[in-house]
Amino acid sequence: MKPRFKELEAVIDQALGNTKGTLVIKNISIFHLATGELRKGDIAVCGDRIAGVGESYDGETEIDGSGLFAVPGFIDAHVHVESSMIPPFEFERCVLPRGVTTAFCDPHELANVAGTRAIDFFLDSAKRMCMDLRVQISSCVPATPLETSGASLSVADLRRYASEMPSAGLAELMNVPGVLSKVPEVLEKIALFQGRIDGHSPMLSGKALNAYLAAGVRNCHECGSLAEAREKLAKGMQILIREGSVARNLDTLLPLITVANAPFLCFCTDDRNPLDIGGQGHLDYMIRHAIAKGADPLAVYRVACWSPARHFGLFDRGLIAPGYRADIVLLSDLENCSVAKVLKNGRVVDDALFAARGEEPDPSEFLHSVRLAKVSPEVFRIRSSSAETPVIGIRELSLITDHLTMNLPFDGKEKQGAPERDIAKVAVLERYGKNGNIGLGFVKGFGLRSGAIASSVGHDSHNICVVGVSDSDMALAVNALIESGGGFSVANNGKVVDVLPLPLGGLLSLHDFATVEQELRRIHVSVKATGCPLETPFLQLAFLPLPVIPHLRITDRGVVDVAKFDFIGV
Amino acid sequence: MKPRFKELEAVIDQALGNTKGTLVIKNISIFHLATGELRKGDIAVCGDRIAGVGESYDGETEIDGSGLFAVPGFIDAHVHVESSMIPPFEFERCVLPRGVTTAFCDPHELANVAGTRAIDFFLDSAKRMCMDLRVQISSCVPATPLETSGASLSVADLRRYASEMPSAGLAELMNVPGVLSKVPEVLEKIALFQGRIDGHSPMLSGKALNAYLAAGVRNCHECGSLAEAREKLAKGMQILIREGSVARNLDTLLPLITVANAPFLCFCTDDRNPLDIGGQGHLDYMIRHAIAKGADPLAVYRVACWSPARHFGLFDRGLIAPGYRADIVLLSDLENCSVAKVLKNGRVVDDALFAARGEEPDPSEFLHSVRLAKVSPEVFRIRSSSAETPVIGIRELSLITDHLTMNLPFDGKEKQGAPERDIAKVAVLERYGKNGNIGLGFVKGFGLRSGAIASSVGHDSHNICVVGVSDSDMALAVNALIESGGGFSVANNGKVVDVLPLPLGGLLSLHDFATVEQELRRIHVSVKATGCPLETPFLQLAFLPLPVIPHLRITDRGVVDVAKFDFIGV
Repeated sequence: MKPRFKELEAVIDQALGNTKGTLVIKNISIFHLATGELRKGDIAVCGDRIAGVGESYDGETEIDGSGLFAVPGFIDAHVHVESSMIPPFEFERCVLPRGVTTAFCDPHELANVAGTRAIDFFLDSAKRMCMDLRVQISSCVPATPLETSGASLSVADLRRYASEMPSAGLAELMNVPGVLSKVPEVLEKIALFQGRIDGHSPMLSGKALNAYLAAGVRNCHECGSLAEAREKLAKGMQILIREGSVARNLDTLLPLITVANAPFLCFCTDDRNPLDIGGQGHLDYMIRHAIAKGADPLAVYRVACWSPARHFGLFDRGLIAPGYRADIVLLSDLENCSVAKVLKNGRVVDDALFAARGEEPDPSEFLHSVRLAKVSPEVFRIRSSSAETPVIGIRELSLITDHLTMNLPFDGKEKQGAPERDIAKVAVLERYGKNGNIGLGFVKGFGLRSGAIASSVGHDSHNICVVGVSDSDMALAVNALIESGGGFSVANNGKVVDVLPLPLGGLLSLHDFATVEQELRRIHVSVKATGCPLETPFLQLAFLPLPVIPHLRITDRGVVDVAKFDFIGV
Repeated sequence: MKPRFKELEAVIDQALGNTKGTLVIKNISIFHLATGELRKGDIAVCGDRIAGVGESYDGETEIDGSGLFAVPGFIDAHVHVESSMIPPFEFERCVLPRGVTTAFCDPHELANVAGTRAIDFFLDSAKRMCMDLRVQISSCVPATPLETSGASLSVADLRRYASEMPSAGLAELMNVPGVLSKVPEVLEKIALFQGRIDGHSPMLSGKALNAYLAAGVRNCHECGSLAEAREKLAKGMQILIREGSVARNLDTLLPLITVANAPFLCFCTDDRNPLDIGGQGHLDYMIRHAIAKGADPLAVYRVACWSPARHFGLFDRGLIAPGYRADIVLLSDLENCSVAKVLKNGRVVDDALFAARGEEPDPSEFLHSVRLAKVSPEVFRIRSSSAETPVIGIRELSLITDHLTMNLPFDGKEKQGAPERDIAKVAVLERYGKNGNIGLGFVKGFGLRSGAIASSVGHDSHNICVVGVSDSDMALAVNALIESGGGFSVANNGKVVDVLPLPLGGLLSLHDFATVEQELRRIHVSVKATGCPLETPFLQLAFLPLPVIPHLRITDRGVVDVAKFDFIGV
């Protein structure tokens, strides 16, 4: 914040009580995160900053804070807005009223579809939004050379962003092998963003972790165990505790959340779908859940507010204190994190605030991104020379997959899935009209007894992924997405049963958040009819192609052994 | 740190153990400040950064760390180098081997004598030094309009520094009344340095504190009581716990030093003289003392290392961790903070390191700063119309003075001190050849029974201050300083007994640190002969003219009532 002269005069006068505060919250219990005290008093807000706390103030406008608690705005340390299936303008209508006043986003989903145009769309949106959406620059587009993406970001692209946006960070550096093997292009990106590189290093430890950190990476949101997190913490890595829709680490990492550790922790949602945001909540859910499970509320709120502010060098937020940005969440219950009202930059968050935003950047350039001819069932036939087969084993509510080896039904030429053993076919179809690749494999854990489900969301290249136990239903599901321009689809017993259209880049809906939530609820019911018991079938499907997460994945080029970072024959 | 490509390749290789570390500390107990664990292992250093910790490494050079502890380099959050009576090059020879690898200094002592030339001298020195001396830009030169300084820094001067040095902060903003009354020049300075303004606000509280903070001030090193510190802490102000030579707040603020509070605390020395640095130590003393008094070592080392790094946005230091700057202190005793060896930027601190520095900037322009004609005893006569007199009451080891009112010996025309009641005369003589002002008053607490002591160090304008019970000895002491070009002097029974010359700006010695320490020890003995029992007589004298600290002070223009920020008749 660089207040001009007049603003300084006004804030000093209002803090002194010489003039009325622009907005005063009266008689509220302020949670002072620096001392841990809960003290009743007034908060005087002058423009976008806090003028005074604790003393008695009169305001031009006054809010009665009786019975309420004031905490600083929450900060999501790492989120892919696209996983909420709505564009940034609609995203903030969904999370800002839940107290998220700042979020560090990585637009790499849309960037894999549309490159710099996607980054620029996010940047343009952020400029006109109410919440502070900090757009980090995607580091790995495409995530790996093992897949075909819609677009790529070059070192030159990144150099431009690094110099034009000196405070933007490099978003999750997933290419760990690239760092460790000193791939020149990776090192060039690292050199551009020294001091502001976000990490992604599941299961990395020992000397390899040292090397990754020594290269300048500052945090990780991929800790799946306490031991992993503790090693990273000791080595100075900020731990971003993630509670996504699939990858949920909050319960596992809960013992980390102490006042002693709090400065070195943040919360993040990474990939959180509309059902979970609408049902459980966003960061408010993480706060509520952590406290309910026994974590110290001081530690929890520091992790949600103060620690990420300091970790990312935002010195104007994270406390309710004079001079700080007036990002304030009013709660009716502190431990339950029940959000009653939110102030962003000193303004009450409501429909009028959203209505007063500048015009949303036109997203129409991201339409028609599914450029693929319709397919026939034959493309899903898997010819082979042996029954022994590597099978991707999914784990519910985890991004990690297992590398299984199984004998599958085999007639000497062609292999089949085995629904009775919960083994389905999986395919990834290149969808940008570049090469027509189709990667084929098998997956265990979807529980399909009939039909197929397909998605144009397929991290991170977002080719079309389909899982099924019927080649013809697989073709129907895929063709439905080609027609809708992307989204989720279900086919069963020879019919397309349901489609949730995501026509923007094959990732984002044109509907509002509440509608998308309803559509998603409906299509989940449709999926259940196939026998699949998963809570988040499309997210589990969408993460199958991500070859930066152990152990076995599938891309449009084939099945990938992540440990070897290479293809494996099916 | 912006490593080039080759450096990144090297650090990755060394971290992986593929190549030998440039320097490896073997088998050392590493104090991991993020987790609080003490774990044995190796530290591999590549160039100026840490490549790996915890694992086993081989090095081109190896240091046996057996029996030693490794902690990050200490950070002094606020120091006036000039109070150590030596220039920056000599200062680091004194404090860097004690573990202080980074210090935020305010060169406002020399700046009051020589203006921007002083700031530039510090900046030029810092560029060639081994330790990281962060030169903040002095905010209040002169400190107040109530005195005559040798030079002043204009808003235009500050604008130039603010734009040329985007990471430099505005040094302690002492002009609290100027902020609260919105003096345009003060607000202009504040506007230039938003987000990086260091504070100085003794006893400020309530709405006035809110206003000061709302203007953008981030910290305070002037907390004299726990209650004061707790209010400031709750209001988001970083508390810099100070242990100077006169102002010593460590014992008072010790209960603040907990793991919960640690992120919001720093240590600083502010004004620490060679006797205390040589005798007790520097930040190492604060660490040792705090732990000895019962503070949690984890909290203490965080306050000494990590918290100031984050407070000032230095994300490359404060932990012993891969990717961090290799500022490492090796201790033979963790709780006693016994420094065995120091690494700065990966290099062992020793005489060879200092010898390899670039040439020290030439300080000769600061010679001959005492431009004052010799004085006669008559200038110290105090004519008056009543016996009732405001008297400055000093408190040992505190900067605060009391505003006393006493009846003094009075013959109807002229007043005298009263040595038997410990009341001496005090005078401040403008020494820059500008106006010949002499401010006269009385002070209680020096314990002088004969003679006079004088100093050209007189915060912050550094006019000549003299305290005495004999007008002729006062003249002798002052004239001795005019001859020596500044320093400290003692006259007793009609003779100049001792002089400690400080010819650079009247503030700094040309001798090395050890010699200055000896000279100071000697002159303290000389002072004792006058009856003065104070431990730091010259520091107590030197702070008498500082009208930004309560309650009664004296400048070359007269006695100042700080509460009214105006002169009071003597």
